[in-house]
Amino acid sequence: MTTMQKKKVYFFGNKKAEGNATMRNDLGGKGANLAEMTNLGIPVPPGFTISTDECNSYYENNQQLSAALLKEIDENLEKVEQSMGLKFGSQDDPLLFSVRSGARVSMPGMMDTVLNLGLNDVSVEGLAKKSGSARFAYDSYRRFIQMFSNVVLDLEHGAFEKILEKTKDSRGVTQDTDLTVEDLKGIVAQYKAYLKDKGIGFPQDPKEQLKLAIGAVFRSWNVDRAIKYRKINKISAEWGTAVNVQAMVFGNMGETSGTGVAFTRDPGTGEKKFFGEFLMNAQGEDVVAGIRTPQPILELKNTMPSAYQELEDIYLKLENHFTDMQDLEFTIQDKKLFLLQTRNGKRTAPAAVKVAVDMVKEGMISKKTALMRVDPEQINQLLHPMIDPKAQVKVIAKGLPASPGAAVGKVVFTAHEAEEWIEKGEKVILVREETSPEDIGGMHVAQGILTARGGMTSHAAVVARGMGKCCVAGCGACDINENTKLLKVGSLEIKEGDYITLNGSKGEVILGQVPLIKAELSGEFGELMQWTDEFRRLKVRTNAETPLDAKVAKTFGAEGIGLCRTEHMFFEGDRIKAVREMILANNETDRRKALDKLLPIQKKDFLELFQVMRGLPVTIRLLDPPLHEFVPHEAEAQQEMAKEMGITVAEVKAKVDKLSEFNPMLGHRGCRLAVTYPEICEMQTRAIIEAAIDASQAGVSVEPEIMVPLVSEVNELSTLRQLIKDVADAVIKEKGVKLNYTIGTMIEIPRAALTADLIAEEADFFSYGTNDLTQMSFGLSRDDSGSFLPEYVEKGILKDDPFQVLDQTGVGRLIEYSFEKARKVKPNLKIGICGEHGGEPSSVEYCHRVGFNYVSCSPYRVPIARLAAAQAVIKETLA
Amino acid sequence: MTTMQKKKVYFFGNKKAEGNATMRNDLGGKGANLAEMTNLGIPVPPGFTISTDECNSYYENNQQLSAALLKEIDENLEKVEQSMGLKFGSQDDPLLFSVRSGARVSMPGMMDTVLNLGLNDVSVEGLAKKSGSARFAYDSYRRFIQMFSNVVLDLEHGAFEKILEKTKDSRGVTQDTDLTVEDLKGIVAQYKAYLKDKGIGFPQDPKEQLKLAIGAVFRSWNVDRAIKYRKINKISAEWGTAVNVQAMVFGNMGETSGTGVAFTRDPGTGEKKFFGEFLMNAQGEDVVAGIRTPQPILELKNTMPSAYQELEDIYLKLENHFTDMQDLEFTIQDKKLFLLQTRNGKRTAPAAVKVAVDMVKEGMISKKTALMRVDPEQINQLLHPMIDPKAQVKVIAKGLPASPGAAVGKVVFTAHEAEEWIEKGEKVILVREETSPEDIGGMHVAQGILTARGGMTSHAAVVARGMGKCCVAGCGACDINENTKLLKVGSLEIKEGDYITLNGSKGEVILGQVPLIKAELSGEFGELMQWTDEFRRLKVRTNAETPLDAKVAKTFGAEGIGLCRTEHMFFEGDRIKAVREMILANNETDRRKALDKLLPIQKKDFLELFQVMRGLPVTIRLLDPPLHEFVPHEAEAQQEMAKEMGITVAEVKAKVDKLSEFNPMLGHRGCRLAVTYPEICEMQTRAIIEAAIDASQAGVSVEPEIMVPLVSEVNELSTLRQLIKDVADAVIKEKGVKLNYTIGTMIEIPRAALTADLIAEEADFFSYGTNDLTQMSFGLSRDDSGSFLPEYVEKGILKDDPFQVLDQTGVGRLIEYSFEKARKVKPNLKIGICGEHGGEPSSVEYCHRVGFNYVSCSPYRVPIARLAAAQAVIKETLA
Repeated sequence: MTTMQKKKVYFFGNKKAEGNATMRNDLGGKGANLAEMTNLGIPVPPGFTISTDECNSYYENNQQLSAALLKEIDENLEKVEQSMGLKFGSQDDPLLFSVRSGARVSMPGMMDTVLNLGLNDVSVEGLAKKSGSARFAYDSYRRFIQMFSNVVLDLEHGAFEKILEKTKDSRGVTQDTDLTVEDLKGIVAQYKAYLKDKGIGFPQDPKEQLKLAIGAVFRSWNVDRAIKYRKINKISAEWGTAVNVQAMVFGNMGETSGTGVAFTRDPGTGEKKFFGEFLMNAQGEDVVAGIRTPQPILELKNTMPSAYQELEDIYLKLENHFTDMQDLEFTIQDKKLFLLQTRNGKRTAPAAVKVAVDMVKEGMISKKTALMRVDPEQINQLLHPMIDPKAQVKVIAKGLPASPGAAVGKVVFTAHEAEEWIEKGEKVILVREETSPEDIGGMHVAQGILTARGGMTSHAAVVARGMGKCCVAGCGACDINENTKLLKVGSLEIKEGDYITLNGSKGEVILGQVPLIKAELSGEFGELMQWTDEFRRLKVRTNAETPLDAKVAKTFGAEGIGLCRTEHMFFEGDRIKAVREMILANNETDRRKALDKLLPIQKKDFLELFQVMRGLPVTIRLLDPPLHEFVPHEAEAQQEMAKEMGITVAEVKAKVDKLSEFNPMLGHRGCRLAVTYPEICEMQTRAIIEAAIDASQAGVSVEPEIMVPLVSEVNELSTLRQLIKDVADAVIKEKGVKLNYTIGTMIEIPRAALTADLIAEEADFFSYGTNDLTQMSFGLSRDDSGSFLPEYVEKGILKDDPFQVLDQTGVGRLIEYSFEKARKVKPNLKIGICGEHGGEPSSVEYCHRVGFNYVSCSPYRVPIARLAAAQAVIKETLA
Repeated sequence: MTTMQKKKVYFFGNKKAEGNATMRNDLGGKGANLAEMTNLGIPVPPGFTISTDECNSYYENNQQLSAALLKEIDENLEKVEQSMGLKFGSQDDPLLFSVRSGARVSMPGMMDTVLNLGLNDVSVEGLAKKSGSARFAYDSYRRFIQMFSNVVLDLEHGAFEKILEKTKDSRGVTQDTDLTVEDLKGIVAQYKAYLKDKGIGFPQDPKEQLKLAIGAVFRSWNVDRAIKYRKINKISAEWGTAVNVQAMVFGNMGETSGTGVAFTRDPGTGEKKFFGEFLMNAQGEDVVAGIRTPQPILELKNTMPSAYQELEDIYLKLENHFTDMQDLEFTIQDKKLFLLQTRNGKRTAPAAVKVAVDMVKEGMISKKTALMRVDPEQINQLLHPMIDPKAQVKVIAKGLPASPGAAVGKVVFTAHEAEEWIEKGEKVILVREETSPEDIGGMHVAQGILTARGGMTSHAAVVARGMGKCCVAGCGACDINENTKLLKVGSLEIKEGDYITLNGSKGEVILGQVPLIKAELSGEFGELMQWTDEFRRLKVRTNAETPLDAKVAKTFGAEGIGLCRTEHMFFEGDRIKAVREMILANNETDRRKALDKLLPIQKKDFLELFQVMRGLPVTIRLLDPPLHEFVPHEAEAQQEMAKEMGITVAEVKAKVDKLSEFNPMLGHRGCRLAVTYPEICEMQTRAIIEAAIDASQAGVSVEPEIMVPLVSEVNELSTLRQLIKDVADAVIKEKGVKLNYTIGTMIEIPRAALTADLIAEEADFFSYGTNDLTQMSFGLSRDDSGSFLPEYVEKGILKDDPFQVLDQTGVGRLIEYSFEKARKVKPNLKIGICGEHGGEPSSVEYCHRVGFNYVSCSPYRVPIARLAAAQAVIKETLA
């Protein structure tokens, strides 16, 4: 790479910078913003930025700074000296520098920084004079040597800390601040002696210090943690880091100095008011450390009115300039205000929404920009109770974030107890090894659910998400004993009745009772959501089985039901009994008898859904899971079932054993059930069509979409299509009415995607079941992935958990292949997605790009999908 | 479809036919061959063939024969009358016809036939005169009415049989042959009365009979069984059937008449000698029925020398003409010889091989043709003991054909007993619910293995195939009780020590002791196999772990090992203990200790394999199955293991529970083990490389191919490639030698195929694991497919079991997609297949077509693959 013709170093200072905000690629994010602020006439301590190209040159040049670079550094150094009227290494009023990394995108904490550079045995005296405190100067020197030794000379902190501790011991003090100037001088001497022992002379030449520090920052681009971070975040190693060399200013030079951080709006609520804190006679780290209590920023008006006025002008200028809420760092050195940093401020979800909407109203940004300002994933916070961000929490274990939100309650170990305790007015968390259909009652009343086994699609996870209830699943660190009523995490024992708190959004189990806040759908949120509809082309439906879920989803803007999993209706109340009778039946006649009992129940379910959705499309999937999911696997439950069904336990056991499979995920389920037991499909079809007719007759027009799951071969679909048509048409004829319906299929098996052209011939619509498609494409059971998938993500083998973020590299190719095949045969085939990816922003964007007609997701993710779909369109206009 | 310009009816007779053997599409197979024989001047009873197009016209024309067709039929009828000098419906010497179907490809027994057509109340007298037997004539008439009523008039046989039985009862006789002419006349009258009752007059007009019979044959093209047969065999409904109307000749017109079937060579051995049987004064069905014993064909020389001489000339002419062994049917009517059919004769595997090789030597056919004449699948018979085809067997249950061959022995229910009984000199069949590694000893000594559970990749099936031992697996009809020592099949009880016979090629369980024959590799077989090597381009390797398997495969012509499944080496003897220690280890240090014990064992295994293969390539796959396959799941075995390992049962149980997975197929296995436990991969790499070095130093040059299983993401492979390289290079350096090795991967997960271009960058070779690729593409666990896959194949939803025959429609697309991607990146990438499809002929052909470099299959399938690979090349030259 040749960089001969390009500048290597960019100066900023004297209200004029050689760079600006658009030059992130060359100057890094920090350098570009420092230049921009300088150009805006905002007081920024002068300095210069060494471009990212020089990082690559450094490596190409055998880790040496080139002569040409050194020359430019020298020139810029002089400019800074001139600008500050100070001299680098001076014994009177020395110029000191900070040397910081700054890559194209922020890599917080990954790379190194050196402060107070330029101190030596001479300039330390200059600093003492300037600050009026020899103690301050020698403490700064001590710190500088230690930081320099660590960052630049690659020595461990330990030896230096030991010297410090020894001195404190010998002086009989415990705080650093109790050390005298003489103590500190002694420590400096000991530090230098230690280095000498190592054969290193601490460089006294400030330029030599600078040269070494710049090299060290370049080297920190390739430390392990930075490489790993880049790999995970797909940051190219070629980008390199810039280096910012900036004059130090001190907020701790007496009562006319100070430092602070501020936001141009309230980052917690989004309210339009200047927000922040400051401390007089302090450095940035003092504000962070929390030893002294900072004052609210408005107090600065009283403490130092001129600085405050200047700051107010600046913050308004910056917000207007960057048209976003800014996060500022400032220092006042001897009454003079300096801005050290500005960046777009991090904010809570409510603040993000309010700031975006307010700024549109203020005419500052467009709706498009506003929509791009809110992270769809963050919206989740607005829809579930959450742990008060101010609360101190003790996380004792981490499981899978199976269902978002937070919950607090007393630990109970059985569903039965959960129900009893609720009767007594308690709030409980149901803690189980794993849950089963028998636990539904307890799950329903509990605040949240914690399981030790099972994955993101385990019973607990699926049911909890359906209920919109917080759940942490598959928390392997939890040793749960229902008999001794103990939950053990390592040596920690939690008894029945003890409080725990769950954070279902992060998978955290927290000791004790933590305050929760219930975020609400504010007016601005509703407004923002309406704007999404002005842009997005992708429809958003919901996955829902119950009228309650359907209602919630509709409130959130769902435009139909994309997936009604009929089997979820099988678990409740008396239904499970009829389901089990059907399963136990030894012949078709008995099976039909049991199905006859289910028919009216299913019909009622569907009718209620149709009524809630009032004419919006409703896709109903035929029975999907293997039959063994409906029978109990534990001895006690089998006894109960035998009693209930009036048969022997042996008979129950025999049937359960017969149904058990080595790999249920790849077994007798989905449309395979309908092929071998057509009568189940017949009953469900009849229930759907009868319900649709009843709804129509009650004034709600319905065009039911009947969906066949788990098709791998077109002959399965054509066989079942005929069966469904025969039953549906017979029912319609029977009732003497007119009713349109369509028959489609899930695309959730790789072979279905591979033969999508053949399958499209028999399908009115496709719905991609990306959960199963991901499992089968990866050869990876979601429920079993816990033993290695986290390690895969951690090691960077996989960037994301493919069950959370759709894998565009692999599964995506399969989807695109099938799209091409299917649309060639049926250009207008309606195509949706109903896997959980349908509510994940990057996956939604992908679906838009590929040409899906709709996504379908759980009710609580509908707003997320709407926003992501709008952003997908806006991104296209930006690209 | 317009057929105006085409002939509808094709005459054959008078040594001249309007059709010939190339016109199968128009005339059907039978019609084309009758025409060909006629043209050859061979005496064939004259007749005519109605073309297949007319079948379609019949359906288009509302199931009516068109006037144009009827006209052509009439014209041809006259020609036959002229040719035979007989008159249709004559009362003196009537012309009678057979009316038979005949499609483009044979659909044996699917469609209808009418014989003796033309008999009526008048011509029956003519037949009586001609045959000299009124009894014969009326019996023929009776049979004709019954056949006509059934086939043409669609009436059940039952009523007719009842009339016949009643007459026999009233006459006090039991055999049809005891009925007198008068009895038969009475029966004819009753048949006609029965029809009259139904409102049907039995048609006396022979032309009406013919018209109706032709229509009936066309209709039989669309009876259920024929439609189903076509669906299964992918025969287009549009092909239609031809109808052959041919003059009847009678072999039962006295002692100068006769009938017989003959083969131009011995269909059992292939020996070049005229082979067959005949009966004088008999009809074809008498030869088949076996009431009278037919005489060997050579006896005809004495009985009727002129006819024999003529037959000999004809058979030689036909064999020379068709250049294949012919299966002939002939009839002698009053000293005059007629050929009724010739077709290529069915033959046993040894005969197929001998005939093909002999004919090449005789200069009759080319090597290419010879190779095409042998069905690769049939070769299987030559390699395993088989049930004597002459034996009468009672099949009591059917399971999966898990490992081919046959076995006879006494039933034992435990491996331990198997070993005890063998000590006593017995031969046993090991009968188990399912087998586990603990049963290896018993499996080793047993003649064959029968299990009630598990599929084609169950432990029993895999181990048995590896041992080349007969196995029937997953035989659900067997109720096996180890405690009561009873094997129940329905109400049948088989006790310990009772004999059973297994047919592992068909999955049959047979009661008692059935004679077996051990087919051998004849000289011709070896010769044929060498010819395959002159044509095929696809290399054939074997899947083998033991030196014994490797030796067998090499004898069969294997050109290397394509898959050595290292885990199979883990089960034997003391090894399992070390394996379990490794699994039980709670940390890396303990795991390494256990692995240290395994290292020398693995190394020795590999060294032995290298020595057997003597320089041929050997691909060794790293550990693949989930670890729980190595630990016992039953209480007793867990106790034993606890004792052996010196730990508590609870500890064993806890570990086993922790390892258990919901879907092991999609769980923590394959390279996922190596990623999370790199030390296992390190040990195996070291063992392979050390063994290769030892082999080299002993004079056997080796280039080991190290294969990483179950890759789904290129980062897995790149991580492990680096690990393997580090270890291998270190060992090579340690030993101070030179050694080449390559690192490749299985392509067995859909995502690996989808991202084959990325993976190819890190792989020296690909080996398609089509077992898993099929499972995951279909979302179908082979072990669980038993509950519905047979029904799928039966219903024609799937043409074949995709685990036996590679699914080219779906899985094939994935393979082709990945080929294109991979070869674009690495045009010379070596690509093989090591799933069981590698030994299935149509799949081998596919692999050749797609461009694989080699297939790898079990030792006993190596010759099959060699032949199939040669045929694939030859087919290309024919296409």
